[in-house]
Amino acid sequence: MQDKISVIVWNEFVHEREHEAVKAVYPHGIHQAIAGFLKSDQGLTVGTATLDEPDNGLSEERLAGCDVLLWWGHLAHDQVSDAVVDRVQRRVLEGMGLVVLHSAHFSKIFRRLMGTNCSLKWREAEEVERLWVIEPSHPIAAGLGPYFELPYEEMYGERFDIPAPESTVFVSWFEGGEVFRSGCCWTRGHGRIFYFRPGHETYPTYYDKNVQKVIANAVRWAVPRVQIVDSCPNVPESLNPIKPKSIHFAKAGVVQQGGRNLE
Amino acid sequence: MQDKISVIVWNEFVHEREHEAVKAVYPHGIHQAIAGFLKSDQGLTVGTATLDEPDNGLSEERLAGCDVLLWWGHLAHDQVSDAVVDRVQRRVLEGMGLVVLHSAHFSKIFRRLMGTNCSLKWREAEEVERLWVIEPSHPIAAGLGPYFELPYEEMYGERFDIPAPESTVFVSWFEGGEVFRSGCCWTRGHGRIFYFRPGHETYPTYYDKNVQKVIANAVRWAVPRVQIVDSCPNVPESLNPIKPKSIHFAKAGVVQQGGRNLE
Amino acid sequence: MQDKISVIVWNEFVHEREHEAVKAVYPHGIHQAIAGFLKSDQGLTVGTATLDEPDNGLSEERLAGCDVLLWWGHLAHDQVSDAVVDRVQRRVLEGMGLVVLHSAHFSKIFRRLMGTNCSLKWREAEEVERLWVIEPSHPIAAGLGPYFELPYEEMYGERFDIPAPESTVFVSWFEGGEVFRSGCCWTRGHGRIFYFRPGHETYPTYYDKNVQKVIANAVRWAVPRVQIVDSCPNVPESLNPIKPKSIHFAKAGVVQQGGRNLE
Amino acid sequence: MQDKISVIVWNEFVHEREHEAVKAVYPHGIHQAIAGFLKSDQGLTVGTATLDEPDNGLSEERLAGCDVLLWWGHLAHDQVSDAVVDRVQRRVLEGMGLVVLHSAHFSKIFRRLMGTNCSLKWREAEEVERLWVIEPSHPIAAGLGPYFELPYEEMYGERFDIPAPESTVFVSWFEGGEVFRSGCCWTRGHGRIFYFRPGHETYPTYYDKNVQKVIANAVRWAVPRVQIVDSCPNVPESLNPIKPKSIHFAKAGVVQQGGRNLE
Repeated sequence: MQDKISVIVWNEFVHEREHEAVKAVYPHGIHQAIAGFLKSDQGLTVGTATLDEPDNGLSEERLAGCDVLLWWGHLAHDQVSDAVVDRVQRRVLEGMGLVVLHSAHFSKIFRRLMGTNCSLKWREAEEVERLWVIEPSHPIAAGLGPYFELPYEEMYGERFDIPAPESTVFVSWFEGGEVFRSGCCWTRGHGRIFYFRPGHETYPTYYDKNVQKVIANAVRWAVPRVQIVDSCPNVPESLNPIKPKSIHFAKAGVVQQGGRNLE
Repeated sequence: MQDKISVIVWNEFVHEREHEAVKAVYPHGIHQAIAGFLKSDQGLTVGTATLDEPDNGLSEERLAGCDVLLWWGHLAHDQVSDAVVDRVQRRVLEGMGLVVLHSAHFSKIFRRLMGTNCSLKWREAEEVERLWVIEPSHPIAAGLGPYFELPYEEMYGERFDIPAPESTVFVSWFEGGEVFRSGCCWTRGHGRIFYFRPGHETYPTYYDKNVQKVIANAVRWAVPRVQIVDSCPNVPESLNPIKPKSIHFAKAGVVQQGGRNLE
Repeated sequence: MQDKISVIVWNEFVHEREHEAVKAVYPHGIHQAIAGFLKSDQGLTVGTATLDEPDNGLSEERLAGCDVLLWWGHLAHDQVSDAVVDRVQRRVLEGMGLVVLHSAHFSKIFRRLMGTNCSLKWREAEEVERLWVIEPSHPIAAGLGPYFELPYEEMYGERFDIPAPESTVFVSWFEGGEVFRSGCCWTRGHGRIFYFRPGHETYPTYYDKNVQKVIANAVRWAVPRVQIVDSCPNVPESLNPIKPKSIHFAKAGVVQQGGRNLE
Repeated sequence: MQDKISVIVWNEFVHEREHEAVKAVYPHGIHQAIAGFLKSDQGLTVGTATLDEPDNGLSEERLAGCDVLLWWGHLAHDQVSDAVVDRVQRRVLEGMGLVVLHSAHFSKIFRRLMGTNCSLKWREAEEVERLWVIEPSHPIAAGLGPYFELPYEEMYGERFDIPAPESTVFVSWFEGGEVFRSGCCWTRGHGRIFYFRPGHETYPTYYDKNVQKVIANAVRWAVPRVQIVDSCPNVPESLNPIKPKSIHFAKAGVVQQGGRNLE
């Protein structure tokens, strides 16, 4: 790991250029709003990346130096290159942290890492969301009270089609009657993943102090503890002696490596 | 669910036709050996499917009627069609059970559902494997003692790159010095998944009575409890009234469905 | 296990005799209301037990034949004998199912099995509770829609001080603004435990068809899969040979058994 | 939290005074051996406590200032005062870390927090234990290779009667043929608990560099993130309005607090 934690905020950056209502809230893009408040953490080096950049802004080199990646997408999930998704998945499994925001529940990378549909119920009705802290001792909840409120948010309701989280940090109450597991943690490979529900493009959610605290906490929580390149090694020498058997079996002579099988 | 449980044993069926050593052990293929002992359960209808059949033996229609799918593969993971992998994944998420056997840890479908590399250490040295029952009350361990042994098996050693299992039913001790989480359960979507480690193609593992008991138990455990087609519905009507807000935000006018976004 | 599943509904049976308001709702006691609807399952033999009976109604003999125990208590948790709590805990760890209802979150037996305080927020205000089904494929949710409502319930709100559940089947939305993990599953020893939130003594909750379905499902889910008496055995003979070591250590000569150490 | 992390190493300190063989290995007691190597972490203030001290060395005041408690016991679990066990449990639930060592699997405090028997198989035969790292990215595994070995240890074998760990950091392979989940993590209340298997009193295990690294890592991992005193508050005022109901129910007039019910 480097001295400073290297963070990239990825955004598809489509809404903010196509819809006046969104541009009014996030004139420089959601990624800049998020990068802006993260920069107050002096331990972080914060950059951004967007869909329209070469390699969707996430070249092999850039990802190699990234400790924690944040992801916001909505309209253009399908336009993210599969090669980039493969690359991000590989890096998460090696140890890179990933913070998945709001409508990125349907991003290729989140669905890839979860293995599930990641679908949910939704409604866009300017309604109150109250996020209850279920695990007050979790590092992502540091500095919060028993709950915090967002005055206007899109509703996401259960059932959220995800693998059971390792920790459920927040559960949301919605004015219109639904609930949602809105802060969920998983480990995949050697990397940590946090999904955080709020952040609809037409509401000023990313200017909310509690939302900013949660995202800043999540970045710190997701910092890599290791960097381990995947392998599936043959270890022909045993640590303890293997007794010769009376019956012998031929070997099929197959070597597995990286998902491929080479004779 | 139907009166009888519909089971399909899928096998790539390559080793048994290409390697004499394997053919000697499983002359009709591993799938037939497994289907053979499963048929003693009168509540099951057992069929088989192989890689070389049209649609890899798993057409839309066939999978639609399948309750539990077993999967054995090794040499030819890459030859399984992506459309078939998509289809099997969809069916598991809808509720179908999946039992993943031995070298299918590296199958496309298992890696897809896990989201991880599913890599491990391995050695082919005719060594003793002793499977310890960690959860004696789990239905998959029904009828077993505190452990059972296989006199000759391939070694798989940790670290096995999987998401932490919901239940770890077995942990293996290997003569050569390694350990392995050899019976692991997950729920993904509405379906249950069981990975079972033993079953190397050159050893007579699938004739072992305890192995047969575990697989038969796993099939019963993985029977669908529901069949739910995925959706990500907009629910514009709220169950409880939403108070009009003083500030109004425009809607971005986006409808999400099935991973795609339609304006 | 016997042919019929043996179920005992335990109730402290104090409110219904001391408070007119409660007597009006449950004239024969909450235990009789619950036993009443469970009896419609022909596979069950349903009995009841109350605090004021000898051994709190749960003698060694009676518990030995019990498959699933349901527990309702509120006013008199402290009056349950510690010997009975020990006995119930032992039986759960051996495999007996336990269904813990509403204010029994503070029962000695639930706190004993959880190891935590099991505290929560609460309010008695005749408010609407809507229980969302988080795991539609879980057997305890069988036959339910995406949610069900109770028109009048006591509110329990997070944070609920419990170990993270193995499955969270329901999350409740409350009219007054709180959320709660209202259907939680754990395995302890060889037994299954389900906590189900609704059931305040002044409301007719146990006459609700969905509540009855959940409790009936939970009883079926909690049926013992094994019955294993605890032991901590010394196994001086090893399964594999242990190589003599060059250095020898004396044995301290201690034998552990049942939490005691006997020289 | 204080500037320095306050650590107490608790030891029953009986073996080392009663058995020459143990005294030879740990002349000043196991607690001093552990405290000794922990002191090389400049961020820690390390003290010790033993059974024979007043309050078993763990007065209310002393525990109030403790961040992480380590616990070694074997012969004298029953002699630990129940009041002290209550106190330690309360502090763990408030946020204090607890590291449970070897034969303390049968300590009152560990069994209290787990809710299970915590029994296992065991054999004292100077055998090789090889601890495989199952979660290389877990902070407790920092700095270790894929495995480490202890040349002489007591064997503990599965089934270990514990609630399924939140993380299983190590699984042990024993020369004599058994396996064991030898490094297990749980959260209870707001506190973190780590059980670490090795450490038999007749072997020089606590002088092993890898064992020392694991314990030092565990202390750092278990540092409190919060300190929250338990409560079960009545919150009569709702955050959102509760609609008057047409039917009214009397209140039973009961106030719950701290496990007691006061009218």
